Amino acid sequence: MRIIVDGMGGDNAPAEIVKGCVEASKEISDEIWIVGREEEILKELKKYKFDQSQFKIINAEEVIDNCDAPVKAVRTKKNSSMVVGLNLLKSGSGDLFISGGNTGALMAGGLFILGRIPGIDRPAITSPYPIMGKGMSLLVDAGANAECKPNNLLEFGIMGSIYMEKVFGVERPAVGLVNIGAEESKGTTVIKAAHQMMKKSSLNFVGNVEAREVPYGVCDVIVCDGFVGNTILKLTEGFALNMFQFVKKKFTEGLKSKVGAMLLLDKIKALKDEFDYSSYGGAPILGVKGAVIKIHGSSNATAVKNGILRAIPYASGHVVQIIEDAVLALEEVERGE
Amino acid sequence: MRIIVDGMGGDNAPAEIVKGCVEASKEISDEIWIVGREEEILKELKKYKFDQSQFKIINAEEVIDNCDAPVKAVRTKKNSSMVVGLNLLKSGSGDLFISGGNTGALMAGGLFILGRIPGIDRPAITSPYPIMGKGMSLLVDAGANAECKPNNLLEFGIMGSIYMEKVFGVERPAVGLVNIGAEESKGTTVIKAAHQMMKKSSLNFVGNVEAREVPYGVCDVIVCDGFVGNTILKLTEGFALNMFQFVKKKFTEGLKSKVGAMLLLDKIKALKDEFDYSSYGGAPILGVKGAVIKIHGSSNATAVKNGILRAIPYASGHVVQIIEDAVLALEEVERGE
Repeated sequence: MRIIVDGMGGDNAPAEIVKGCVEASKEISDEIWIVGREEEILKELKKYKFDQSQFKIINAEEVIDNCDAPVKAVRTKKNSSMVVGLNLLKSGSGDLFISGGNTGALMAGGLFILGRIPGIDRPAITSPYPIMGKGMSLLVDAGANAECKPNNLLEFGIMGSIYMEKVFGVERPAVGLVNIGAEESKGTTVIKAAHQMMKKSSLNFVGNVEAREVPYGVCDVIVCDGFVGNTILKLTEGFALNMFQFVKKKFTEGLKSKVGAMLLLDKIKALKDEFDYSSYGGAPILGVKGAVIKIHGSSNATAVKNGILRAIPYASGHVVQIIEDAVLALEEVERGE
Repeated sequence: MRIIVDGMGGDNAPAEIVKGCVEASKEISDEIWIVGREEEILKELKKYKFDQSQFKIINAEEVIDNCDAPVKAVRTKKNSSMVVGLNLLKSGSGDLFISGGNTGALMAGGLFILGRIPGIDRPAITSPYPIMGKGMSLLVDAGANAECKPNNLLEFGIMGSIYMEKVFGVERPAVGLVNIGAEESKGTTVIKAAHQMMKKSSLNFVGNVEAREVPYGVCDVIVCDGFVGNTILKLTEGFALNMFQFVKKKFTEGLKSKVGAMLLLDKIKALKDEFDYSSYGGAPILGVKGAVIKIHGSSNATAVKNGILRAIPYASGHVVQIIEDAVLALEEVERGE
């Protein structure tokens, strides 16, 4: 297998990206092609020892950054690491593409360069949602589609379910639909229609899931539109961060508290680790015709390494093809074939 | 002033409701009328000492519970404590109505019995959103209107702003619109249109607020549709509860941790208290023609007392009338008068 990595994507590129690639290479025999400014990447690579035959640098002088307007950036920065990387994936020169760059541009690039999986109306950005003590659930959509139709939500469920099964080995993943009540009659017109479609599908649909239950990991795949998904992700992030800051302040007020906090240091650290998204690897952009993985923009080398290692079963398991077949089968059922 | 209290609403009714009323009565000179099953309420009242001239029991034999379908319950249970209480408010026999009963029924009852404030298209359920170390923000809508039009969101902002000013004494409350990005161009069609309306209004509109910022208390009034509002509230509730359970488990593993936790006990308790919604009183149902306050179904006597005390400025400050005038003025501006 050949893994293509965006060497210039993210806040710590290319240093941490290159370091992460080197670390990952020691655990796999696959090839890693790093796309980006050759000179900069080479300078980083020289810091490490590794099997040279596993690596190749593909020069790309331009960089799409987070300030770039996604669609425009993809259309004009033809020689950016992201566009060059996606084209390598498209041409079959590589099996998967990993980037920590501008999420919107990666989505737009995926759509323009790779195209959609036939039958998928709207690709989705996903995100692992950490569940304390229990791993993660997959949130689909995490923000690409602020407005959705019922079939979009059904497709998010199908794609997420296949991903969790093939990449995380979850058997018959439980798929839940975020709603403001457990009853079928609850929610918006779109949600109600999506509920009926999901209920009739072959998914292991567990029904409506209230946001209250999401942190408990009641389902493996959390389906919602991008507005709600983005709200869930960002609220969790903001709430946890704010709470940690508050706890830190409170737990260091006075000697008694400081001693107490010292005795609990390992537990507090363990608690913080529960929110470390990076151990679950990156997040696939589901619905584009190719294995595209987004890693967090702030990824360090370990996150890059995890992103690469977790991405391998996504490509080797032919998840994109399986999604295409599943959607095709779905359409056949709908047409009564 | 005369305060009408639903004696039968909530999980701990009538015992905690009556106790809360008695506790509140010691801090105010206003009359409290408790509506519900006279015998049961009298039995509870007899447990306490209080100024008899402040109290009156209005008998109502029926009870609307949480399993009742809201609209049907309001239409058929004419002699329920909720319907009788709302009718007393409507007739002018009382100045405000407080209930810990079925939220949907209270909303439906408010609409059918009191009607909407002229110019308000859709009344909203509100909720205090606790901000660690900083009090609370008011969330509008907390779940009554899953689907909204732009003008609904504008009206939520106006009503919330007036409430925070008159009841909590916040000068020029900062009003934020929940969105998936800070830029004006972000979000759904409805959100984009609402943004423009709010920007042009006389509100102290701080623009889009990402869910990440909500727990930091970046605005006094958090405006969103009921689907998003309900998601924010329930996710916060579920996340905090799950985290406390996890922390409790972790902090009691092993002797060292137990000692540490003991030393931090007061800080942990203080942290939990930050999430005690009840100290902020109840939540007004904004947009109905009368001062209706919902208190949490699980309210204990203290929460009932706080609900009553906080509700007084809502009625005495003529907030409902001020909202009516503000909406009227808004319409005049729109008509160019």
